[in-house]
Amino acid sequence: MGTRRRSFWGWGWEDAGLAAEQQQALAAALSARFGRPVEVAAAPDLDAISLRPPRLDPPPALAPICSQARYDRAGHTYGKGYRDVVRGFRGEFPHPPDVVAFPGSEADVTALLDWCSSVGAAAVPYGGGSSVVGGVECKGDGYAGVVSMDLGRMASVLEIDRPSRAARIQAGVYGPALEDALRPQGLTLRHFPQSFEFSTLGGWLATRSGGHYATNTTHIDDFVECLRVVTPAGVGQSRRLPGSGAGPSPDRLFLGSEGTLGVITEAWMRLQDRPRWRASAGVRFASFDAGVEAARAVAQAGLYPANCRLLDAGEAAASAGVGDGSALLVLGFESADHPVEAWMARGLECCADHGGVAPEGVRSAGPAEGRAEGTDPDGEHGGGGAVDTWRSAFLRAPYGRDALVAMAMVVETFETATTWSAFPALHAEVRRTVERALAEVCGAGTVTCRFTHLYPDGPAPYFTIVAPGRRGSELSQWDEIKAAASEAVLVHGGTITHHHAVGRDHRPWYDRQRPPPFADALRAAKRALDPAGVLNPGVLIDPLSPV
Amino acid sequence: MGTRRRSFWGWGWEDAGLAAEQQQALAAALSARFGRPVEVAAAPDLDAISLRPPRLDPPPALAPICSQARYDRAGHTYGKGYRDVVRGFRGEFPHPPDVVAFPGSEADVTALLDWCSSVGAAAVPYGGGSSVVGGVECKGDGYAGVVSMDLGRMASVLEIDRPSRAARIQAGVYGPALEDALRPQGLTLRHFPQSFEFSTLGGWLATRSGGHYATNTTHIDDFVECLRVVTPAGVGQSRRLPGSGAGPSPDRLFLGSEGTLGVITEAWMRLQDRPRWRASAGVRFASFDAGVEAARAVAQAGLYPANCRLLDAGEAAASAGVGDGSALLVLGFESADHPVEAWMARGLECCADHGGVAPEGVRSAGPAEGRAEGTDPDGEHGGGGAVDTWRSAFLRAPYGRDALVAMAMVVETFETATTWSAFPALHAEVRRTVERALAEVCGAGTVTCRFTHLYPDGPAPYFTIVAPGRRGSELSQWDEIKAAASEAVLVHGGTITHHHAVGRDHRPWYDRQRPPPFADALRAAKRALDPAGVLNPGVLIDPLSPV
Repeated sequence: MGTRRRSFWGWGWEDAGLAAEQQQALAAALSARFGRPVEVAAAPDLDAISLRPPRLDPPPALAPICSQARYDRAGHTYGKGYRDVVRGFRGEFPHPPDVVAFPGSEADVTALLDWCSSVGAAAVPYGGGSSVVGGVECKGDGYAGVVSMDLGRMASVLEIDRPSRAARIQAGVYGPALEDALRPQGLTLRHFPQSFEFSTLGGWLATRSGGHYATNTTHIDDFVECLRVVTPAGVGQSRRLPGSGAGPSPDRLFLGSEGTLGVITEAWMRLQDRPRWRASAGVRFASFDAGVEAARAVAQAGLYPANCRLLDAGEAAASAGVGDGSALLVLGFESADHPVEAWMARGLECCADHGGVAPEGVRSAGPAEGRAEGTDPDGEHGGGGAVDTWRSAFLRAPYGRDALVAMAMVVETFETATTWSAFPALHAEVRRTVERALAEVCGAGTVTCRFTHLYPDGPAPYFTIVAPGRRGSELSQWDEIKAAASEAVLVHGGTITHHHAVGRDHRPWYDRQRPPPFADALRAAKRALDPAGVLNPGVLIDPLSPV
Repeated sequence: MGTRRRSFWGWGWEDAGLAAEQQQALAAALSARFGRPVEVAAAPDLDAISLRPPRLDPPPALAPICSQARYDRAGHTYGKGYRDVVRGFRGEFPHPPDVVAFPGSEADVTALLDWCSSVGAAAVPYGGGSSVVGGVECKGDGYAGVVSMDLGRMASVLEIDRPSRAARIQAGVYGPALEDALRPQGLTLRHFPQSFEFSTLGGWLATRSGGHYATNTTHIDDFVECLRVVTPAGVGQSRRLPGSGAGPSPDRLFLGSEGTLGVITEAWMRLQDRPRWRASAGVRFASFDAGVEAARAVAQAGLYPANCRLLDAGEAAASAGVGDGSALLVLGFESADHPVEAWMARGLECCADHGGVAPEGVRSAGPAEGRAEGTDPDGEHGGGGAVDTWRSAFLRAPYGRDALVAMAMVVETFETATTWSAFPALHAEVRRTVERALAEVCGAGTVTCRFTHLYPDGPAPYFTIVAPGRRGSELSQWDEIKAAASEAVLVHGGTITHHHAVGRDHRPWYDRQRPPPFADALRAAKRALDPAGVLNPGVLIDPLSPV
């Protein structure tokens, strides 16, 4: 990462946010949109913020891999959700970790866990720190202190098995470095969450990240051959297997465990050949409901498009410049093996059956012709203006969010998944609930919806809200909106999260969603693997036994 | 099931085995093949076998759903593996369950578990009883007795959600009855293990059954929306979700738990529209190795064939009448949505790249034209002589196995999965090891191999052995061969089972394969959910706390 430095309070590189004149233009637009003044506050100064003194110091043997520097402690205090960025922007860091550790080896991880277990310090595994659900924020009440374990030094691709298309990869690798290491072999993981640049393989695995593929293999889970996990009770290494029926899947217990059961240090991941053929189309529908029916038809047709993202009119206007009030289905196929015309042709027929039209036709690309639209930030071929703009916008969106935070806007997303049958009521009720909450709490604001992933039995809807906040009260405003939205999601048959994870923020709804026997099993597993209860306390389950 | 009765010792209906003249012809052929006399022994007589008296009786409140009848106790003593059928054929039933219970409701299941927990009786969930790994065989040492819980009365499809293509199904339903209930809606689960006629949804779920699809969604796991599980600690009901990232998957802990953590009573299952277009081809390869390369190419091409099963020369000759020493890849596509020519064309190109030829061309069928070859025993259209023969042979094979048992042959299968890179050495070493064991132990015999399922990162090889046994010593002969094979599988990177499950028979190798921290977690979960340790003791893990 050269000499660029990550922002200690916001998204990405500290020199990559919106320029001052961009921020002023944005503020003017928002002011016009919401009919009230919008002011841009100044970003925080690291030297000016107050950090309490560390409550514990590392033992001498671990000191060389530990930091108590202001930048490290502040930067590891929060994830990158709206609540995090608001507090970071305000310079509020009341609960920074006492120590930030940078293990360089599995032995380091073991030694750190041993130390934390022996002194009763909370140990918080930290990948890219892009959690939006309070996954890395730990007050450490009842603990001797909090140790953030940043896996960023364990970031190598250790081995590549080309015939099996798999690689053994250390958990701390960031998205771009991972793709850089695979590209010379013609391989790619093709896991491109919006956090791609600033999140790690280990983080994706621990939180069941959702990725590039809109259908079929949507979660990182499906790309795992095996995991290596360091727990306080010992190291676990599953076998590299393409499939198995030998007991409950050992990996599935750790996928989604969010750092509560162990530290994922390595994985053998299934890879793809880099796509050579691509086709994409933007299909417009007169109504969102018609688009939903088309999306269902495509999802149930067995075509497995890489991209199949339905945007409601609000999102289509904001993200894709669709000005006629249509909903937009972005349909894309890709293959390393064969031209995809037959697949796209049938996909468009499914859309046409529900009134979908593609006024701009199909954009196709063969082996020498570059790339079509998608969430892939990693292509070596530039595909032209619109494509590069779209891709850049996708990756730069969080910087824009941070600028909105500076303007005291309430801006956040939430997401779920549900069955096709349950979706219409869920969608209507979530919209109604959130719109009412926005009116009551903020006096204005918009909620829009898109599908990020599709399954034969239902969609994964993703909601975005933007509203003018009261500076100083944004968090309580957002908390009220979020609680109303979460309640509506849960009551109408959704999951509290499809791919943002549970963390601490989703706990009340997760606790209701999770079957009690599984909660019992999870707590029992935690007791067995983390007897001192030090690993990421408060995430997924209540702290078991704060020392 | 009318008035037909299941065999108490062997496969399927007791009146459906090979006729006497068929058995004599088979014996003559085997005698010629192995150069030694082959005699057909008489099947056992239920009234003549010795069953120890029950060690415990049900309480009065449960007596109406319990049986201690000779037929029920003998019939629930074993699964249907080779070791089971040999012992059943001999009339050896030293450890029958003391009680066979037939719960008709979840309340019955709970009451049975409460009773077993209170008196310290082992409770063995029983679906179709088709386990080939000792999954339902429980001696009950250290327990007050053994209660087999046959779910066969809980066998209804309770609800169908047509738009989401899903149904709520009771666990005790057998394959044919399930498909009968779905057919009027144009739906199908498309899960067709060889045991289809005599196995149940609950059994498939508890053992991570492998099914119809050779690629992509191979295991029953992938078709589960949610589970309902009765544990001694309470009832768990997960949410109907097409996808979720809310913590570790609650369902994946119970999938493959083989009755050790609870009794699966219901599931919402993802369904398919019934296929309308099909295409299949038999592709021949001069060598198995060339076929392997072609299978890999197809598996990595993103074509998702429903069928893609590679038979080595021995299997191709025995199962498909291929007499020229070729390996055979049976390639099939099916769709409810679109013609599959483009998919088949590219699949055949992948094969041709590795020297594959399809001398009989492609067999295609459209909506009105019936069906092509596959493992689908459920089509309403007869597809012609070869197809019906193949399908019938697939489903009737276990009856043939039973006839071989009567002739003191050693006949069994074992299966695994491994990466493409590891497969050649695994295959060579398993063959070498088993051939040596057959020569030493039986003086003759054959081992053949096919791929039952394929993944982008590796195949699931399935081995079949046939050898002349010494009557009375077959089991020790088989045990020696199986141990050698299992050792070779494990040492060369395979899983001890891809879809046959662990049961009691695979325990030594499963224990070595399973990461120790996961074993700790599993034992802890068991303690939490089954505190009296009554559920299927000895499967997956050692009995925890025999009362």
